[in-house]
Amino acid sequence: MRKGKPQYPRQQPGPEKVNIHRGTLTNVWIYGLHAVEAALANPARQLQRLVAIDTVARGLNQSRLKAEILNRDAIDALLPRGVVHQGVALLASPLPEPDLQDAAKPLPERRNVVVVLDQVTDPHNVGAILRSAAAFGARAVIATERNTPEATASLAKAASGALDLVPFVRVVNLARALDELKELGYWCVGFADRAEKSLAAADLTGNIALVLGAEGEGLRRLTIERCDQLVRIPTASAMASLNVSNAAAVALYELARG
Amino acid sequence: MRKGKPQYPRQQPGPEKVNIHRGTLTNVWIYGLHAVEAALANPARQLQRLVAIDTVARGLNQSRLKAEILNRDAIDALLPRGVVHQGVALLASPLPEPDLQDAAKPLPERRNVVVVLDQVTDPHNVGAILRSAAAFGARAVIATERNTPEATASLAKAASGALDLVPFVRVVNLARALDELKELGYWCVGFADRAEKSLAAADLTGNIALVLGAEGEGLRRLTIERCDQLVRIPTASAMASLNVSNAAAVALYELARG
Repeated sequence: MRKGKPQYPRQQPGPEKVNIHRGTLTNVWIYGLHAVEAALANPARQLQRLVAIDTVARGLNQSRLKAEILNRDAIDALLPRGVVHQGVALLASPLPEPDLQDAAKPLPERRNVVVVLDQVTDPHNVGAILRSAAAFGARAVIATERNTPEATASLAKAASGALDLVPFVRVVNLARALDELKELGYWCVGFADRAEKSLAAADLTGNIALVLGAEGEGLRRLTIERCDQLVRIPTASAMASLNVSNAAAVALYELARG
Repeated sequence: MRKGKPQYPRQQPGPEKVNIHRGTLTNVWIYGLHAVEAALANPARQLQRLVAIDTVARGLNQSRLKAEILNRDAIDALLPRGVVHQGVALLASPLPEPDLQDAAKPLPERRNVVVVLDQVTDPHNVGAILRSAAAFGARAVIATERNTPEATASLAKAASGALDLVPFVRVVNLARALDELKELGYWCVGFADRAEKSLAAADLTGNIALVLGAEGEGLRRLTIERCDQLVRIPTASAMASLNVSNAAAVALYELARG
């Protein structure tokens, strides 16, 4: 052990708490087959308890933790009311909070893309955006909001395992995060319905930070001021707009399409 | 009234029922600001009851039905538990079931696009797909499933008014519906992860039916057999896949991109 490094008392994890290196954080229930499988495969997760119905337990391909066989009602009783758990749930440590610089530092000889969310709080949308970010190979998703444990669980379910594939970075000050991304060499591309330039016509070379705002409100002024260009996704109807996770998927696709 | 047309007894609508021309159907609660505004603007809806909190009621720009002012708890009590109604709800007749031929018949001098869903049942996904279909000017969304009233309400909320903009056609037999679309002049483009051709490389001229399957299962064999070509959306990670509504948004965007 290195000299001078602060020491933390070691404790046995209790039923609802786990000791991680920077203190004691509450474990989280992860549910849904894809989310649980991705968490089981992620060495950064400390695992506490795995429960599954018989048929699902037999299909889980992992050796880290033995599944307790429970029926659906017993699993329901462990989780927030009404969630769709697909017969499997895992109590595990939350992921360590990734640092913006570590997560977004551009890798050489490839295009680096990050997604930045300005006050997008709906956990289904944030989860779906993490999933698209994982599918299209984005480096990180960056957002302001710190969510409740219930929101974190439904975010993990909507992310379908992507939380264990793509760093989800929460920042206090989004404008400062955009400044840091620009220093790292990212071009900040903001999405606004009233932008003149269409996504397909924009200059999207180099490392790109896609900046999307909440539905209705859009990007805040301080966010817009930090964008190098504003673009819109052309739509056919003035009465209808895209859901923010669909807008993110389209933007990530356009970058991948090249 | 035309001779020989069957007659139905006329009744006054009760608090939960409304008489429409082919019989008696249960009214549905529509909630969320965009969904309620679109339904209020749709002359095909018969309106029964509009409830709103004071601040929302004052902002509703319509003259068809006077809003009853209720507090949030009273609105909560009218709707399924836990829904996010944004302070407004409307009890209205369901929309008449559109006919496939009427909804999808190609309009001349434009490209016609329809979205066909093979066993996609999650109401949030179907609602988000209707919303993207409206945004990108698709003619119709076609699916097999007949949903419960609760699913219909959350579908309408996720569609954010798009149910009143794009015909949502439910069919008994999807394979037969694809045959009908082909007779109407549509090319059927199926989405499959294992297809060799990427979306951007496919021949997408003419009128197009985009055919998407449920997550995990994908398209059924009888559906695939009716597709003129199969394509995939290229992704970077084998571990992550797109949510079906995000895949639909990407496909509609690619067609609109031209």
